[in-house]
Amino acid sequence: MTTSSEADAHPSEQPKLSKKAAKKEEAKLEKLRRRLEASSAVSGAAEEEEEEDPLAANYGEVPLPDLQSKEEVGEPYTEVGALGEGMQGRSVLVRGRAQAIRAVGKKMAFVVVRERGFTVQCVVTEQEGSVSRQMVKFVASLNRESIVDVRGTLTVPSSPIKGASQQVEIQVHKLHCVSKAFPTLPINLEGAARSEAEIEKALQAGEQLVRVNQDTRLNFRVLDIRTPANQGIFGIQSQVGNIFRQFLLSEGFIEIHTPKLIAGSSEGGSAVFKLDYKGRPACLAQSPQLHKQMSICGDFGRVFEIGPVFRAEDSYTHRHLCEFTGLDVEMEIKKHYFEMGLDFYVQVMDIVDQLFVAMFDSLNASCKKELEAIGRQYPFEPLKYLRKTLWLTFQEGVQMLKDAGVEIDPLGDLNTEVERKLGQLVLEKYGTEFYILHRYPLAIRPFYTMPCYDNRASSNSFDVFIRGKLLGHSTCQQTFSD
Amino acid sequence: MTTSSEADAHPSEQPKLSKKAAKKEEAKLEKLRRRLEASSAVSGAAEEEEEEDPLAANYGEVPLPDLQSKEEVGEPYTEVGALGEGMQGRSVLVRGRAQAIRAVGKKMAFVVVRERGFTVQCVVTEQEGSVSRQMVKFVASLNRESIVDVRGTLTVPSSPIKGASQQVEIQVHKLHCVSKAFPTLPINLEGAARSEAEIEKALQAGEQLVRVNQDTRLNFRVLDIRTPANQGIFGIQSQVGNIFRQFLLSEGFIEIHTPKLIAGSSEGGSAVFKLDYKGRPACLAQSPQLHKQMSICGDFGRVFEIGPVFRAEDSYTHRHLCEFTGLDVEMEIKKHYFEMGLDFYVQVMDIVDQLFVAMFDSLNASCKKELEAIGRQYPFEPLKYLRKTLWLTFQEGVQMLKDAGVEIDPLGDLNTEVERKLGQLVLEKYGTEFYILHRYPLAIRPFYTMPCYDNRASSNSFDVFIRGKLLGHSTCQQTFSD
Repeated sequence: MTTSSEADAHPSEQPKLSKKAAKKEEAKLEKLRRRLEASSAVSGAAEEEEEEDPLAANYGEVPLPDLQSKEEVGEPYTEVGALGEGMQGRSVLVRGRAQAIRAVGKKMAFVVVRERGFTVQCVVTEQEGSVSRQMVKFVASLNRESIVDVRGTLTVPSSPIKGASQQVEIQVHKLHCVSKAFPTLPINLEGAARSEAEIEKALQAGEQLVRVNQDTRLNFRVLDIRTPANQGIFGIQSQVGNIFRQFLLSEGFIEIHTPKLIAGSSEGGSAVFKLDYKGRPACLAQSPQLHKQMSICGDFGRVFEIGPVFRAEDSYTHRHLCEFTGLDVEMEIKKHYFEMGLDFYVQVMDIVDQLFVAMFDSLNASCKKELEAIGRQYPFEPLKYLRKTLWLTFQEGVQMLKDAGVEIDPLGDLNTEVERKLGQLVLEKYGTEFYILHRYPLAIRPFYTMPCYDNRASSNSFDVFIRGKLLGHSTCQQTFSD
Repeated sequence: MTTSSEADAHPSEQPKLSKKAAKKEEAKLEKLRRRLEASSAVSGAAEEEEEEDPLAANYGEVPLPDLQSKEEVGEPYTEVGALGEGMQGRSVLVRGRAQAIRAVGKKMAFVVVRERGFTVQCVVTEQEGSVSRQMVKFVASLNRESIVDVRGTLTVPSSPIKGASQQVEIQVHKLHCVSKAFPTLPINLEGAARSEAEIEKALQAGEQLVRVNQDTRLNFRVLDIRTPANQGIFGIQSQVGNIFRQFLLSEGFIEIHTPKLIAGSSEGGSAVFKLDYKGRPACLAQSPQLHKQMSICGDFGRVFEIGPVFRAEDSYTHRHLCEFTGLDVEMEIKKHYFEMGLDFYVQVMDIVDQLFVAMFDSLNASCKKELEAIGRQYPFEPLKYLRKTLWLTFQEGVQMLKDAGVEIDPLGDLNTEVERKLGQLVLEKYGTEFYILHRYPLAIRPFYTMPCYDNRASSNSFDVFIRGKLLGHSTCQQTFSD
């Protein structure tokens, strides 16, 4: 709501969420598309009339039949992200999106070409025998986000390039548009990739930059996911799943795929989506919990699943979603989560915390570029975590809070605010933002939770915390033979 | 239906599918459970009266409080699958299920203990100072599938052991029942693990063995998945996903998780499950197709997904399921699937077939035990496949069929029978059961399929075949800028 004035100022970037507005937006796009088609037909004709260009083969739009796989093995493309100073003087062919286009008079134009989050500056300069003035005009009139094939020579400029990720330039010989974008898109990628800090800084300098709002981003998701930060987020999401799996597979777990269409609800606590299954009532699984437990009863020993979880909840916090991807683990424990694992030197509890440590380590090591891309738009500090994860008992947590003047019920649950406070205290005392709290009060855990042998008010269960927020929870239970 | 007489002969192993029968079954189990509890209480009391056993600590049922995590670090367990001749003379502790129990007089009993598909024979012999006659009696009266802790010394018998996977025996000193199974289970694991061939062979020798039917297996899935073959199948399923992922990640793909709750149907062809999404109509995704394509438009380049797919189909073939786990791949191709990939020496088409070759190779190498376990119950021949996968054009396939006297429409689709026939012909001519058929007639592929440049009746699309059956299909298409 605070940006409603901006929304009016930049109507194409700030559509309303309502259905009516969405329809209007669609109609507008359709109108633009038609106008574009009409104008390109006209301008094409006009240009031909204007002047015949002997260098016309070096640029233009590639007609569909020419894209149709005529060359079975063609000239190889170089990825934009792979362009570097070592390739100076080399002739390259790249394909990417025209992210920004800028004409300098009639003889020169710059195009920033982006491929998977990496960008390179391409320079088109009028030159006898290769680049005509019409070609410069064609390039200057490209629609942003169009896909272009660029052929040219790689040069290294004397001063650093600000507007692109690669520190080289392509001196363009040929440029063809492979797929033309609408002349006006609801999201400008440069705007969508901007950080709050940049917008604030510009504002202080008297310049008002466009802020792309969350609703616009969600309505035009296919455009928004092209930003370097979003490319990074999806890359990291993929990597998180990969590390999670590799770690668990190496510890003797197998991956299962439990049914999502089930006859009853899987957990009591959360609302369920109901549907008709060929005349019989069915539900969408709110958790793989029961099927994981069946796998353990079925002698699988150690299982995990990465899959969708459905909850028909009406909550509006960032911790509640109707559909999300759950990372679920279930394992047989012989006596206690402090017992030694299969290989005699890893405690079962270590599997839990080492899983996370492996994930943090691996993301820091293999996703540097992704983390940097995210950090440019959404600055963050690296996570503080210990090599040997801190395990605190619930009682110790309660005591730490008490010492800090926060009195809570030692047999009750922690609320969000108290969790955040405890996170602060743990960071101050132990220097970690990642820790595990165990021996929760029995009364606040599910019915199947195993009580502690030395105190029946406590239970063999634990929660995993990151930056004062619950990351996951676990419960030990009694499993039965059949 | 052909086994209905058997069902009567072995009522506990062959329950009917009807609800009434299922209820009856449940009631019966409940009755048995009560009887068991009563009898064990009585017999326990009777035994005490009978004779006080000074060795009573060496056996018996472990009461729940004793299981409750008292020892934080206890004696380590050895996995049954790890027991081998090299450990002769060593004292071991194993936990597993009592799969088969056999008493030999009053002084000796054998128990086959199973853990995750591996089995070991345990021998309990009356012995002064350690094993009492009451202990032998206790062991002989164990319910099958109960979980037991067995302590004993490992010996290597002079002749091979037939009834267990491990070629060693445990001379038992202590045996405790950790979790007691019902005295009669609807599935006997030895019966459930039996191959058709064994049953036939026994029949010819005049012995009628129990055949556990598919409906019984599905009704008591948690028992059936304990068979070595099913343990193997789930292990391989896990590994298939793993290889698929590792191969694609190494080729620059990222893993995505697309929404399963969507506003409209994802593909025209198949029926859809509808549900109410907070007052608005929603569907379960029949395919990640559209979201994969949006990922490509969103500049991800190469994506894949392993996740549930929902189809409200009424077909009753083994190739149709209402819910299954789909392995989906989508990639940007610059011109043709014959073009060179990112690294300049792998053709895009190679990614497709090498994905499968990597999977076959890796399963053969890393899942030997699982494949053997499956083969014992369901014998099969190893798959014949080539290092360099055979790619045939649709036209070549039609010609091969024609030469073999099978006339089909060169612009039509192949039916299941013709596909099987072509599989045979390919195996005879090329010695492979795995091949790819490409350049399908355009008319029978989805609307977005790219026609071939040299023949508009054909298309840039292919299907992957294994043993004459369709394994997957692919379509090249034109993607747009926005």
